[in-house]
Amino acid sequence: MLEKYSVRTDLALEEKERFESDNVEVQGVVLEEEYDEEREIRVSRVRIETEKGAKVMGKPVGTYLTVEAPNMAVPDEGYHREISEELSGYIKELIDRLGLLGKEDLSVLIVGLGNRQVTPDALGPYVVDNLCVTRHIVKEYGKYAMGMEHANLVSAIVPGVMGQTGMETVEIVKGVVEETRPDLVIAIDALAARNSRRLNRTVQIADTGIHPGSGVGNHRNGLTKESLGVPVIGIGVPTVVDAATIVNDTMENLIYALETSEMLKGVGDVLRTYNAAEKYELVKELISPHLNGMFVTPKDIDEMVKQISYTISESLNLLFTNAKETAEA
Amino acid sequence: MLEKYSVRTDLALEEKERFESDNVEVQGVVLEEEYDEEREIRVSRVRIETEKGAKVMGKPVGTYLTVEAPNMAVPDEGYHREISEELSGYIKELIDRLGLLGKEDLSVLIVGLGNRQVTPDALGPYVVDNLCVTRHIVKEYGKYAMGMEHANLVSAIVPGVMGQTGMETVEIVKGVVEETRPDLVIAIDALAARNSRRLNRTVQIADTGIHPGSGVGNHRNGLTKESLGVPVIGIGVPTVVDAATIVNDTMENLIYALETSEMLKGVGDVLRTYNAAEKYELVKELISPHLNGMFVTPKDIDEMVKQISYTISESLNLLFTNAKETAEA
Amino acid sequence: MLEKYSVRTDLALEEKERFESDNVEVQGVVLEEEYDEEREIRVSRVRIETEKGAKVMGKPVGTYLTVEAPNMAVPDEGYHREISEELSGYIKELIDRLGLLGKEDLSVLIVGLGNRQVTPDALGPYVVDNLCVTRHIVKEYGKYAMGMEHANLVSAIVPGVMGQTGMETVEIVKGVVEETRPDLVIAIDALAARNSRRLNRTVQIADTGIHPGSGVGNHRNGLTKESLGVPVIGIGVPTVVDAATIVNDTMENLIYALETSEMLKGVGDVLRTYNAAEKYELVKELISPHLNGMFVTPKDIDEMVKQISYTISESLNLLFTNAKETAEA
Amino acid sequence: MLEKYSVRTDLALEEKERFESDNVEVQGVVLEEEYDEEREIRVSRVRIETEKGAKVMGKPVGTYLTVEAPNMAVPDEGYHREISEELSGYIKELIDRLGLLGKEDLSVLIVGLGNRQVTPDALGPYVVDNLCVTRHIVKEYGKYAMGMEHANLVSAIVPGVMGQTGMETVEIVKGVVEETRPDLVIAIDALAARNSRRLNRTVQIADTGIHPGSGVGNHRNGLTKESLGVPVIGIGVPTVVDAATIVNDTMENLIYALETSEMLKGVGDVLRTYNAAEKYELVKELISPHLNGMFVTPKDIDEMVKQISYTISESLNLLFTNAKETAEA
Repeated sequence: MLEKYSVRTDLALEEKERFESDNVEVQGVVLEEEYDEEREIRVSRVRIETEKGAKVMGKPVGTYLTVEAPNMAVPDEGYHREISEELSGYIKELIDRLGLLGKEDLSVLIVGLGNRQVTPDALGPYVVDNLCVTRHIVKEYGKYAMGMEHANLVSAIVPGVMGQTGMETVEIVKGVVEETRPDLVIAIDALAARNSRRLNRTVQIADTGIHPGSGVGNHRNGLTKESLGVPVIGIGVPTVVDAATIVNDTMENLIYALETSEMLKGVGDVLRTYNAAEKYELVKELISPHLNGMFVTPKDIDEMVKQISYTISESLNLLFTNAKETAEA
Repeated sequence: MLEKYSVRTDLALEEKERFESDNVEVQGVVLEEEYDEEREIRVSRVRIETEKGAKVMGKPVGTYLTVEAPNMAVPDEGYHREISEELSGYIKELIDRLGLLGKEDLSVLIVGLGNRQVTPDALGPYVVDNLCVTRHIVKEYGKYAMGMEHANLVSAIVPGVMGQTGMETVEIVKGVVEETRPDLVIAIDALAARNSRRLNRTVQIADTGIHPGSGVGNHRNGLTKESLGVPVIGIGVPTVVDAATIVNDTMENLIYALETSEMLKGVGDVLRTYNAAEKYELVKELISPHLNGMFVTPKDIDEMVKQISYTISESLNLLFTNAKETAEA
Repeated sequence: MLEKYSVRTDLALEEKERFESDNVEVQGVVLEEEYDEEREIRVSRVRIETEKGAKVMGKPVGTYLTVEAPNMAVPDEGYHREISEELSGYIKELIDRLGLLGKEDLSVLIVGLGNRQVTPDALGPYVVDNLCVTRHIVKEYGKYAMGMEHANLVSAIVPGVMGQTGMETVEIVKGVVEETRPDLVIAIDALAARNSRRLNRTVQIADTGIHPGSGVGNHRNGLTKESLGVPVIGIGVPTVVDAATIVNDTMENLIYALETSEMLKGVGDVLRTYNAAEKYELVKELISPHLNGMFVTPKDIDEMVKQISYTISESLNLLFTNAKETAEA
Repeated sequence: MLEKYSVRTDLALEEKERFESDNVEVQGVVLEEEYDEEREIRVSRVRIETEKGAKVMGKPVGTYLTVEAPNMAVPDEGYHREISEELSGYIKELIDRLGLLGKEDLSVLIVGLGNRQVTPDALGPYVVDNLCVTRHIVKEYGKYAMGMEHANLVSAIVPGVMGQTGMETVEIVKGVVEETRPDLVIAIDALAARNSRRLNRTVQIADTGIHPGSGVGNHRNGLTKESLGVPVIGIGVPTVVDAATIVNDTMENLIYALETSEMLKGVGDVLRTYNAAEKYELVKELISPHLNGMFVTPKDIDEMVKQISYTISESLNLLFTNAKETAEA
């Protein structure tokens, strides 16, 4: 088997699958799966329960929900309210795990990570564009004047990327958190997946925040409870695959085929005598250096990112501004 | 004369002119003017020197430079480098007044105020789009590695407007200032002018920051040394005139004409017997309530705002990232 | 009364109202009104029946439906499907008048007039962005393969404006019509209204096409059955008011007030001795030349134009691609 | 050698290189190369001179200039005027070949192909956005009134793509050509390259127009002298590489390595016994079906396409509206 850890994925589920494909069981990591046939939505829960599991997985202890909804990338009239509702429920599940469900007048800061001017990285900013923010209204008029017994205080920011701001995203968000003191940060980001099949139809929701090196824009510092002082839920959608990943995948397929093909049996016999390191060495230099910084992305990425951003902003609007039970439950 | 104080202007120069048109001298307020014939640029310096002057003018003590360049709104190939150079010099003059000229490794946070999605209010965000930010590079590699003896640390942010963020702009900027500790904030904003002749060809640069109620978006709280803890230079360009202002102007013209017209001499005789308050009362209710929230703006505002934003971002780039003498002088 | 014909409106309804306000009955022009209380939609039908009526109205013989729906400018989740349905019905009414209702496989070319880069003029291009075009699919696969007994052939084009194309819009559309031979052209355009109260909540649908001098961009040549060789339905939404119009309105109010005010009775007595021409002369020069090319527009015009464009494209999609009865009825 | 004809390129130069890499000389095809060291611009002229050459190359008889300028993708202040000037000269060369140079009052229709809403396909529309069109002005005022002895009539159109218009692009352009009768059509399009090294730094200028199956959006019908009735110059810039191409490339590298590697000599011995068809068979099914419709594109494609579009529109503006000698020479 080829060395795979060089290949980047931001999805805990893909990390887990990697081990499974090698029939390796990872201690301290639990995977549960559900499938809603009617809505065609598959949900996987990867729970990293121990530090050892975290080390093997390369991701911190916590819960990672992955919602796969092939319909998400298909346009419909109402921006897939049924998926928004589903996502809403899973975000709520993590808020519950954080012990914040039922908190009176929950104050949430939603952070739209990424670069509005680079289409596959614009997911976060687009989500913020369609959010219902309420903090300023509740502060100004009070929830009773609004005829509500409970009102969540929703605020939102698009911090931009370091190349535009000259600042680490975490510096900006930390400053805003310290000034406005939300109970919870929810950060939205475009991710890189390993598998092109997952693009634009998968949402990962994690109670561990956003981590260094993840995201299309590759954050240098994470947004986590440690760095910000408040719990952080990360919501990510894979919108690109690194070009190198795709090439790597296909070469693995090729080598596997060479090893097993009847037609090329002789090749396989030879290949089988080499170990992973030797094969990796062989492949490494074949990938064109021009693929650096190149992404694989579907042609209609512009429209897809817009559509998915609606589905996500709607799930947050449902959760925080339409649904009384959030604060009550 | 009609009561004018209901009419909004963000330009100190227009405020000053208002008094001049009435032949009123304002104590504690000095006006100087220069005209560069070759470049067709007129510069006015309004200096409000006393608290009394500030009270009469409705603007705080400080220096307000107004640069009028009719060419600014005319497209050229190089985004009016000559105007950028001129602006650069005036911003430097205010940095000098603040005692920050010559400071080693000056750290500047540039704030693009306004709403990117509302054309005449998008000036600030557009300026930030074209800035050369350097803070992260200097922090990462050091100025010596960059082959510079002096390097300004430029950072930038587009905070958004309250309806999008649920936060006061000052909360966001204050948080970022406290986290990143710049020596100086420069805030860019689209302004409302009183006179449609000034639209898109006038830049006001003030060492007093941005004040409540100013800007196309009408800030509720100012960005000032008091609120942020560091000096604030405000750069504003009028991009709209309130619809009510235009109507008011024309009515003043009409009443003046009635009072002086030979043809309608009789009307003038009658009108002259009424005092300002009575006339104001007369006019007030004639302005359609539907004009509330309406702006007067030129048809090509989209293109103009883009062009002017380049001129301004270029003036900042010239000042902070190309010109060694800033730090040295 | 002041001379009003200098004041521009693209709405037949406003033209009609002008005469009504003077208690003038226009021969050959019929006005009918309906009000749907539940949906809060008011519909006016102006029918210009004779050439004489056409001359007085300054608009050609034909039917002009004006749909006023104050809710149209208010965001909702589903882009006001109820208004889309209503509009759909009225467009169908005009298709019926043209004798095209029930035509097998109706072929329609939808033309999005205006300038995508000037917000209040971008309505037409935005409508086309969201249309369901079918002509190429029906041509390629046939309607039976699509499981339909009747299929309308919808095509669409955004011709751009003369300053961008160097061509008259009518030249482009005529070329496309001659090449693709549709049965009907529907042209969408942003209009100038006389009354700011009508902005962004009124849709005019006319079976007379688009006329020279109308639209925000002021067409030099019309799109009509005469110029294109096929019937043309024009759909327009007022998105701006000329700045001069607003000033003119207020001055009329002022003069009316002067004539009737108890307080300024003397002024009125004098004014009444002058005729319309004299008063018009008085007012004409008071309007600042700087108002030329200036528009009055609401601050949130960017969002409004987007929203309304959805309502209209949806009404066309409902009519031509979802609803079998169009072709059948 | 692997079967390569499955791999798509719109560049005649790449097609030619393909044969060269196999040491195959193509009869009837001439390749000339120049290199301007100072400006770092390489120009290749592929001349397909016979029908036989055309058949082998899969491209029609004609001249294909390929300008490679690595700096093109690097931002500078003036949009690379030096490259614009160079391009201007080559376009002029082809106009000369078409016998149109020196024609009095040359009338040119510039067509911006592609989809404005899909970033790598938006090149054509963006070029048109920045063109200087003159046809309407010359028609209205006459060239003498403009103080010119010769004036080219430049018009431009963005026809949109079939999924938006329901019409073949050639139908729209043909209609416009028949209505406005230009002497020449210049069509701008985003292309797919074979080699990621060529992305965003290569311009192909051909006197053969635009051909079926070329372009990012894959035209079904060409824009050629045959289809439009007037000569067509095609200007294309590769902005994407098909994902499948990249994978294919790397696999070719791999197989070549296997065949030559000392380490894996045995594999090579076996592989060498198989012919191209067998190897192609082997590879074909390894490419993931999910790569269909996937593009490889650099992360900053949005900015690059904008920048390059300026360089090209400027080259056309220089040629047709600033430079008298075009018409004169």
